[in-house]
Amino acid sequence: MIKFFEYNWQVRDEWFNWCKQLSTEDLLKDRIGGVGSILYTLFHIIDVEYSWIRAIEGKDDVVVQFNDYNTLEKVKSLSDTFRNDIVKFIQTNSDESNDQLVSVPWDEDTYSRSGILHHIVAHEIHHVGQLSVWAREVELSPVSANFIGRDFKLI
Amino acid sequence: MIKFFEYNWQVRDEWFNWCKQLSTEDLLKDRIGGVGSILYTLFHIIDVEYSWIRAIEGKDDVVVQFNDYNTLEKVKSLSDTFRNDIVKFIQTNSDESNDQLVSVPWDEDTYSRSGILHHIVAHEIHHVGQLSVWAREVELSPVSANFIGRDFKLI
Repeated sequence: MIKFFEYNWQVRDEWFNWCKQLSTEDLLKDRIGGVGSILYTLFHIIDVEYSWIRAIEGKDDVVVQFNDYNTLEKVKSLSDTFRNDIVKFIQTNSDESNDQLVSVPWDEDTYSRSGILHHIVAHEIHHVGQLSVWAREVELSPVSANFIGRDFKLI
Repeated sequence: MIKFFEYNWQVRDEWFNWCKQLSTEDLLKDRIGGVGSILYTLFHIIDVEYSWIRAIEGKDDVVVQFNDYNTLEKVKSLSDTFRNDIVKFIQTNSDESNDQLVSVPWDEDTYSRSGILHHIVAHEIHHVGQLSVWAREVELSPVSANFIGRDFKLI
């Protein structure tokens, strides 16, 4: 499972770099499908990942508002901060077969630790697929989604 | 890793059902981003998955042409046929830590078995993210991409 986190984090950083060529208007423009704009999508991915990981860790949810992070620099910085906080957890807890149940503050259900890790991984890849369509809409090549042929920076 | 295949196959079948409400024109319409139309995307996902799995198995690639499978029924049938052929392999070979190298007929590089399995999984989720944007373009709700809260049919 850890390879998927390495993949997602690397692809995410490539999207942050890719975004530098966009105007603020293009970053924030509400688009068809997904959760809205390109920048909000990146914010949403980061927020969701952190909330689920903190839930597994038994820590309180940290609620962040997009209004406080509505520039590329701020979203990238949020990504770095949250990642720094969860990297140790990912390094030692990415065993996909751990089915321990986890309670979350945002609903009444419980979820298996394994299910949550799968959910986080699929969630980011899915939203990045949406970014790739919007990239073409602004007439730019998207970041490569290939898992294979990628030099991985180990986490 | 097997949970991701269960997830992808289940989501794919839900997209096949979802597609029944589309006209042939909407299924085949060339769209912005990704590999083209909604139906071709599903065909492409199936083709890529099968080619990589057969490469791991050391079997010849089976080359399929979209022109021979350009209806929803034919693509769904292709998906069922290929899945039927690889389900036993997935059930017993989805260990993500197997780094045995695999040669493929379509290029000179070798790839680790583990890398290929990760690639197949991420490839389908990424393209399904694109379908979800195109769904909104035809003013329909996309299939849910949630991993969590899903009743899994075991494979």
